[in-house]
Amino acid sequence: MLNFEIDRIIQNALIEDIGTGDITTESCIPENAHISGYFIAKEEGTVCGLFVMGRAFRLLDPEIKVTLKSSEGQRVPKGTIIAEIEGPARAVLTGERTALNLLQHMSGIATAASRSVAAISGTKARIADTRKTTPGLRILEKYAVRTGGGSNHRIGLSDGILIKDNHIAAAGGIIPAVEAVRRRIPHTLKIEVETTDIAEVDEALAAKADIIMLDNMTNEQMKEAVLHIGGRALTEASGNMGDRDLKAVAETGVDLISIGALTHTVRAMDISLKFN
Amino acid sequence: MLNFEIDRIIQNALIEDIGTGDITTESCIPENAHISGYFIAKEEGTVCGLFVMGRAFRLLDPEIKVTLKSSEGQRVPKGTIIAEIEGPARAVLTGERTALNLLQHMSGIATAASRSVAAISGTKARIADTRKTTPGLRILEKYAVRTGGGSNHRIGLSDGILIKDNHIAAAGGIIPAVEAVRRRIPHTLKIEVETTDIAEVDEALAAKADIIMLDNMTNEQMKEAVLHIGGRALTEASGNMGDRDLKAVAETGVDLISIGALTHTVRAMDISLKFN
Amino acid sequence: MLNFEIDRIIQNALIEDIGTGDITTESCIPENAHISGYFIAKEEGTVCGLFVMGRAFRLLDPEIKVTLKSSEGQRVPKGTIIAEIEGPARAVLTGERTALNLLQHMSGIATAASRSVAAISGTKARIADTRKTTPGLRILEKYAVRTGGGSNHRIGLSDGILIKDNHIAAAGGIIPAVEAVRRRIPHTLKIEVETTDIAEVDEALAAKADIIMLDNMTNEQMKEAVLHIGGRALTEASGNMGDRDLKAVAETGVDLISIGALTHTVRAMDISLKFN
Amino acid sequence: MLNFEIDRIIQNALIEDIGTGDITTESCIPENAHISGYFIAKEEGTVCGLFVMGRAFRLLDPEIKVTLKSSEGQRVPKGTIIAEIEGPARAVLTGERTALNLLQHMSGIATAASRSVAAISGTKARIADTRKTTPGLRILEKYAVRTGGGSNHRIGLSDGILIKDNHIAAAGGIIPAVEAVRRRIPHTLKIEVETTDIAEVDEALAAKADIIMLDNMTNEQMKEAVLHIGGRALTEASGNMGDRDLKAVAETGVDLISIGALTHTVRAMDISLKFN
Amino acid sequence: MLNFEIDRIIQNALIEDIGTGDITTESCIPENAHISGYFIAKEEGTVCGLFVMGRAFRLLDPEIKVTLKSSEGQRVPKGTIIAEIEGPARAVLTGERTALNLLQHMSGIATAASRSVAAISGTKARIADTRKTTPGLRILEKYAVRTGGGSNHRIGLSDGILIKDNHIAAAGGIIPAVEAVRRRIPHTLKIEVETTDIAEVDEALAAKADIIMLDNMTNEQMKEAVLHIGGRALTEASGNMGDRDLKAVAETGVDLISIGALTHTVRAMDISLKFN
Amino acid sequence: MLNFEIDRIIQNALIEDIGTGDITTESCIPENAHISGYFIAKEEGTVCGLFVMGRAFRLLDPEIKVTLKSSEGQRVPKGTIIAEIEGPARAVLTGERTALNLLQHMSGIATAASRSVAAISGTKARIADTRKTTPGLRILEKYAVRTGGGSNHRIGLSDGILIKDNHIAAAGGIIPAVEAVRRRIPHTLKIEVETTDIAEVDEALAAKADIIMLDNMTNEQMKEAVLHIGGRALTEASGNMGDRDLKAVAETGVDLISIGALTHTVRAMDISLKFN
Repeated sequence: MLNFEIDRIIQNALIEDIGTGDITTESCIPENAHISGYFIAKEEGTVCGLFVMGRAFRLLDPEIKVTLKSSEGQRVPKGTIIAEIEGPARAVLTGERTALNLLQHMSGIATAASRSVAAISGTKARIADTRKTTPGLRILEKYAVRTGGGSNHRIGLSDGILIKDNHIAAAGGIIPAVEAVRRRIPHTLKIEVETTDIAEVDEALAAKADIIMLDNMTNEQMKEAVLHIGGRALTEASGNMGDRDLKAVAETGVDLISIGALTHTVRAMDISLKFN
Repeated sequence: MLNFEIDRIIQNALIEDIGTGDITTESCIPENAHISGYFIAKEEGTVCGLFVMGRAFRLLDPEIKVTLKSSEGQRVPKGTIIAEIEGPARAVLTGERTALNLLQHMSGIATAASRSVAAISGTKARIADTRKTTPGLRILEKYAVRTGGGSNHRIGLSDGILIKDNHIAAAGGIIPAVEAVRRRIPHTLKIEVETTDIAEVDEALAAKADIIMLDNMTNEQMKEAVLHIGGRALTEASGNMGDRDLKAVAETGVDLISIGALTHTVRAMDISLKFN
Repeated sequence: MLNFEIDRIIQNALIEDIGTGDITTESCIPENAHISGYFIAKEEGTVCGLFVMGRAFRLLDPEIKVTLKSSEGQRVPKGTIIAEIEGPARAVLTGERTALNLLQHMSGIATAASRSVAAISGTKARIADTRKTTPGLRILEKYAVRTGGGSNHRIGLSDGILIKDNHIAAAGGIIPAVEAVRRRIPHTLKIEVETTDIAEVDEALAAKADIIMLDNMTNEQMKEAVLHIGGRALTEASGNMGDRDLKAVAETGVDLISIGALTHTVRAMDISLKFN
Repeated sequence: MLNFEIDRIIQNALIEDIGTGDITTESCIPENAHISGYFIAKEEGTVCGLFVMGRAFRLLDPEIKVTLKSSEGQRVPKGTIIAEIEGPARAVLTGERTALNLLQHMSGIATAASRSVAAISGTKARIADTRKTTPGLRILEKYAVRTGGGSNHRIGLSDGILIKDNHIAAAGGIIPAVEAVRRRIPHTLKIEVETTDIAEVDEALAAKADIIMLDNMTNEQMKEAVLHIGGRALTEASGNMGDRDLKAVAETGVDLISIGALTHTVRAMDISLKFN
Repeated sequence: MLNFEIDRIIQNALIEDIGTGDITTESCIPENAHISGYFIAKEEGTVCGLFVMGRAFRLLDPEIKVTLKSSEGQRVPKGTIIAEIEGPARAVLTGERTALNLLQHMSGIATAASRSVAAISGTKARIADTRKTTPGLRILEKYAVRTGGGSNHRIGLSDGILIKDNHIAAAGGIIPAVEAVRRRIPHTLKIEVETTDIAEVDEALAAKADIIMLDNMTNEQMKEAVLHIGGRALTEASGNMGDRDLKAVAETGVDLISIGALTHTVRAMDISLKFN
Repeated sequence: MLNFEIDRIIQNALIEDIGTGDITTESCIPENAHISGYFIAKEEGTVCGLFVMGRAFRLLDPEIKVTLKSSEGQRVPKGTIIAEIEGPARAVLTGERTALNLLQHMSGIATAASRSVAAISGTKARIADTRKTTPGLRILEKYAVRTGGGSNHRIGLSDGILIKDNHIAAAGGIIPAVEAVRRRIPHTLKIEVETTDIAEVDEALAAKADIIMLDNMTNEQMKEAVLHIGGRALTEASGNMGDRDLKAVAETGVDLISIGALTHTVRAMDISLKFN
C-alpha cells in the first residue's frame, strides 16, 4: 500500500466530514489549546487500522502525537486502551470522527476475519476474502482481512483469473476458455475455474486449471470433489459461506473458503476516544 | 448530489476493482458479444442506488442499457426483478461486481432505515443518521437513509452545530459555548447542545439552543426532559440507539432518534445479476 | 478550512503562474543565493491572508521563512511592514506574484467588509456576505469577510435554506414550500424565505420561517416589516446593498444586511514585497 | 484553452457552491419541472464568458439549452437580453449562481478592458494585462481582456521573459542578465527588461533587449525614452497605470500600456437571470 | 484498460503540449474551417494505438471523425494509409502532435515486439516484456507488446511475484523466501524465483517455485537448466536479452524470453499526418 | 519545474508499478531491515535526473538517503558510481525500478543530446529539441536536453509560434498569417515561419518573421537561404535531422538544428542499482 494512496483515501474522508470547516470547534476551542486522551475498546475485538487512524490526525496537524498501546491484529478484551493521543485540541476534535470511522470499520473486519479463522482452526483450510468490498476501501479492507488472520483472494480483475459460467459459455466450454485465457495473461497468474458439479471439475482438471472453485456445493459434494481432484489443483469453497458452518466446510478438505460477508456486511468494532 | 461527484466515487470503485483490465473477460468474451440479464432481489428489502448502478455501467460503456423495474425506496419481496440490463457483454461482466457492491450496500442501508422508521410508526419521532458513515461514501449513505424514510442529521462538521462536552468545557460552560458559536456561524444554522441530565438541559434552554441532544439517557430521563423542554427546542435521543427498543424511545416524545448503526454496521442487501 | 484544500487552491494558482518554470529567475539567480525582504502596505487597509501567503512560499520551498509583523484582521496604516521574508532567492522571486495576488485579494475583501461594518457601528445589525463570490475562492473570501468583522451567510446551497420566488411558485406558495423543505432537510438547518412585501412576510411568519429576507425594499418598508415581525424571525436586508446607505438600512432594525458587492466587486489592497 | 481544463475550473466552482446538494430546490421543485428564462444586462457593458456560462449549466444537465442573443465582446446597452435558457428547472436553478458569477466576472473585466482601449483610441498604443490576476482564473481573465479589445502580456513565468531589478542585481547588470537569459531560454521568446531611467534604457539597448519596460516614469520621461529607443525595441509603460490618464500615456509613443487593475480590481458587470 | 484511465493519460499529454492554447492555430484558422487528411506510414511497421489516437482528437472536439484503414497489430508496408481524419480544422491541427506522439510511440513498441517474435518463430518460446517501461505509459506499452505478438510479464509489483537475490538473502535462502511469500500472497498468483546457476535452480525446484528465471546465463547453461527442470516449472531467460541472438536463446528450450529493451529503448515508428 | 508537479509525475509512475503493494518485498524483507547500495553506470553517458530519482525514493519513505557522487550533466565513464543510497530495505527495493526507469530514460536523452552537441562543436549552431516527446514526460525530457547541452525549442503550443503550411494556406499566405498572429499573441513571443524554398523565405522576411525554419532542405539550399537572410532572422534547420550529418548541417550557417529523434527515439542509459 502506497502512503500517498492511503492518504488520498483519508483526505477524501476528511473532506466529506469537515467540508469547509468544523465551525463548532473553531468557535469554542482556543487556537492554542491542547488536549490528551485515549482510544478504548468498548468490546472485545481485533484491532486494525492504527496507522490509518494516526495518519488521519497527522494530515490535519502534524503536531498530533499518537502513541500505540496495542498492535495491528492484536485481540483485545473490552476496556483495553489501544492508543493514546495528545496534541492541538482543535485538530484532535475535528479529526476524531473520521479517524474513528476508519479504525472501527477496519477493526470490525479484522474481528470478523479472526472469528472465521478461529472457527476452522485445526483444519488445513484458509479463510479468504472476495471482491464484495465497500467501494473505495478495498485495499484497506483486504489488509484488515489479512490482519485478522485471513488470506486474500485476488485484489481485483487484473491480478487473478476466475473463469465463471458466462466466460465458459462464451468461450464454448471450460477447456477453450482456459486456453484462451492462458494465451493472453501474464505467465505469473494462476487460472481458477468455477465449477458446480463433478463433470465440470473434470473439465477443469483436463484444462489444467490451477484452482477449482466449488460453487454452492453441499459439504458432501465438496468432499467428493476434493477427493476426486486429489491435489491436482487448489480447491476453494464458495457461495454464501457467511451462513455456513465453517468448520464443517473446512473438514471437507478444501484449501480455501471465501466469504463475501467478511466485507459486504461489516459491523464496526465499538471503540471510543475519551479525553483526559 | 453533483453528477460528476457521484461519478468520481464510482470511478474510484471501478479502478480499484478493474485495475489494468478484466483479463478473464477480455480473453473469453468476443469484443462484439452482447448479453442481457436482470437484477433480482434474493431477499426482501428496500431498493436504493439504482441510478448509481446505472451510472457505473455507463461509465464503462455508454451503450449499456439499464431498464428499471422498481423505484428508489420501493419495498420489494424476495424474488423481485428490480432492473433489467442489456449491452456489450464485456462491459456488463466487467462492471457487474462494482455495480452490485454499490447497489447492495445502499439498499442494505435503506432497508435498515426503513425498518427503524417502521418500528416507530404512529409516533411523531423521526429516525436520523449520524456522521458514523463509511469513509468516502457519506453522500450516498445519507441519501440511502432518506430513501429508507429516515431523516438526515447534519452532513458534516460545516453544515450543523453540535456542541459536545469538550466544547463546553473549553468554552467554560454551555452558555458561553453557545454564545461563542452564535457569533461565528452563518445565521442559517441552528445550534444543538449535547446534554446528559436535566441541569444541562436547563443550561441549554437558557442559552436558547435550538436543539437539545439527550445523550445516553434512560427512557424515563428522556420523558422528563421532553416535558421540561416543552417545545422550546427540538429534542434528539442519542447513544447506542441501534440496541434500544425504538418504539419505547419514540414514545418518550423526542423529536428525533439518531442511530449510528444505520451506517456504521451495514448488512448488504442480497441482490444478484442473472443473465438470460 | 482544511490545510490540504487550501494548498490545492494555492497549487493551482502557482501552476497557472509558473507553468513549466520561471526561466528568467532560473537564468539570472544562482541556485544558492539568498534574499530577504518585507511586505509593506502601500495604503491603509485590513490585513488578511497572511497564512495563505506563507503557505504559497513554503509550497515552493520549505526553507523560506515568513515572520509576521501584523495579524489577521489588523487595520494597518499606509507604510506598515506587515511581514518579513527570508530564504532561497529563486523560490522567493518565483512565488512573489502568486503570494501577493492572494494576499492583496483577501486583504481587499477584508478591508471592504471592515468598512461596511464600521458604517453600521452602534446598531445591532450585522454585515453578511452572499454566494456572489469569485469562482474557486469562496472559502478564502468568506474567511476574509469574517476577518473584516463581517458575518457569513450560508457557504453554499447545501448548508442553508433560502426559498426564493421560483421555489415558492413551484411549490404553490410560501407555506407549502416551507413544509416541503422542512420534511427534507437536516433538522440542524434554519429556513429562510425571500419576501418582497408585507403580505409575503405574513405568509413566511405563518409558515414559521426562521429567517425572513426583505428583498429590494425601501427603508420604510423594512422598518414596517421589522416591526411587524417583532422578533418572531431573523430579518435580512438584501438587494444591491452595496449601493445603499448602510447606516440607514441598519437603523430600520434588521438583523442582517447582506452585500454581494463585498465579494463580486473586489479592489485588491495595495501591498508590495520589497527586498533589502 | 482546453475544454476539459475550463470544465475543471467550472466544476470546482460548482462544487464549492452546491456542496452535497441544493436542498432547497430538491425540496420545492418537482424532478420533471421545466423552466425558461433569459439573461439580461442591468447596465451597459461588454459581454464575455457566454460559452463558460453555457458549459456550467450543461455540466449539471446536458438537456439545458442556452440560446445566445449576443456575442462575445459585444457592447450591449442596459436592458439587453444577452441569452435565453430553457431546461429542467432543478438544474437551471441550481446552476444559476455559479453561471452568473463566472459571466459577471468575465464581463466585468472585458468591460474594463474595453473602456481602457477606447480611452487610447487614435494612438498606436495597445492596452495589455499583467500577472496580477485572480488566483485560479488566469486563462479566463486573460481571455476576457482580449475579448474587451486588450492585448495579453505573457501568460505566466514560463512563456515570457521579464528581467527585473533583482534579476539584474543578482546577474551583475543588465547586460550579463540578458546574456544569461538568452543562453537558457527557448529561442522563440523575446526578452524584456525593466528600466527606470535613460541610463538603464541604454544598457537594455546595448544588451539588444527586444522589449523595454518603462517603469513608473512620468510621461515626459517616457516620451524621451521612446525617442531615444527609436524603434530598436518595443516599449511598455508600466506602474499603477490604472490611476493614470491613459490617453496622455499613449501619446508618449509607447507601444504598450500594461494595467494590473484590469484584473486585480474587478467590478462584476450587473447581469440577471429572469424567469418567464 | 479503463476508458477514463486512458483518457487521463491522453489529457495529461494534451495539457503539456497545448498549455493555455494553440495560439498559432487560433490566429490563422477560422473557427468554422474544416480539414481532412490521412495518416501514412513512412516506413514498414506494426500499427498500434489507433484507438488512443482517435480518443486524443475526440477529447479536443467530439466532431472529429477518424476512419481506420488498418487494424491494431497489422503489419503495414511503407506508404500505407493507416487512417483518415476529417473535422474542425482547429482541433485537428491542435491535436496532431499529441496524437502522433502516442501513435508513433506505441507502434514503435509493437514493431519491435513483432520483430522479436518473428525472430524466434518455429520455437515454443514466447517473447515477454518487463517493468522497464516509460514512466506513466505502462498500460499502453504492455498493450503494445501484446499487439506486436509478445506476451506480458506481470504488470507491476502487486500482480506477480519475483523473488530476487535481495529477497532471498533477507529471507535466509530460496526455500524460506518462497514459503514466506506463499503465506502472504493471494492464492491466485504464481511464484517466480531468480536463479543464476544450477544450485539455485535446484533450490527453487525444492521450494516448488512455479517459474524459474534463468538470469544472465549462457545458452549452454540455460539448455542444461531447462533439461534439469524438466517441465517442473516454467523457465524464463532474462538479462540483456535485447543484445542476444534470440533464436539461439529460444532454442535452449526456455518458455519465455523477457526483453527490457522492448520498452526502455523505443524507436518511434515514422508516421505522418498529411492533409488533403 | 514545480516540485509538486514533478512529484505528481513520479507518483503516477510509482502507482503504475507498485499498484496495491510490493508483495514479494513485504513477504521477504523484515519491516525494520536496512540496506545500502550504489548506482553504477554500466556504460559511458551523461547523467541526468538524479534529483528525480531521489524524490522517487523519498516519496516512498522520507528516511531514504541518497548521496550524489556525480552531478547533473556530468559525462561519466563506464563503471562510475553516480550515487549511493541507504535506508529502509523495503522502500528501497520497492522504489528501485521506478527510480531507475526515470534516471535511465533522462540520462539516455541527455547522452544523445550531448552527442549531437559534440558533433557540431566549433560551429555557431545550437542543437534544439522538438515537441516530439514522450507523452507525459515533456518537462523532464526538455530538461534532459538542456542538461546534455542542447537548447529548448518552445515547450508547447502556447509559449511559441510556428506558422506551418496549413496555417499559411488558411490565412492566405505567409504575410497575412504573420499579421494575424501578431495581432493575437503576447508581445513577448517571437514568430517563426516554416519555409521550404527561397520564395517562401522571402515572404517570411517581408512579414518580418523573427525566426525562419528551413524545412527538409538540402545543405546547399540551407547555405543559400542563410546567406539570403543575412541575419535578419534566426534560422532553424529541420526535418529528419536525426539522420543527417549534423556537422555538415551546422556548417551551412544555420543558428539552430532541431532534432525530433532526441526525444522520440530514446535509448535508456544502462545504469544499475547494486546493493552492498
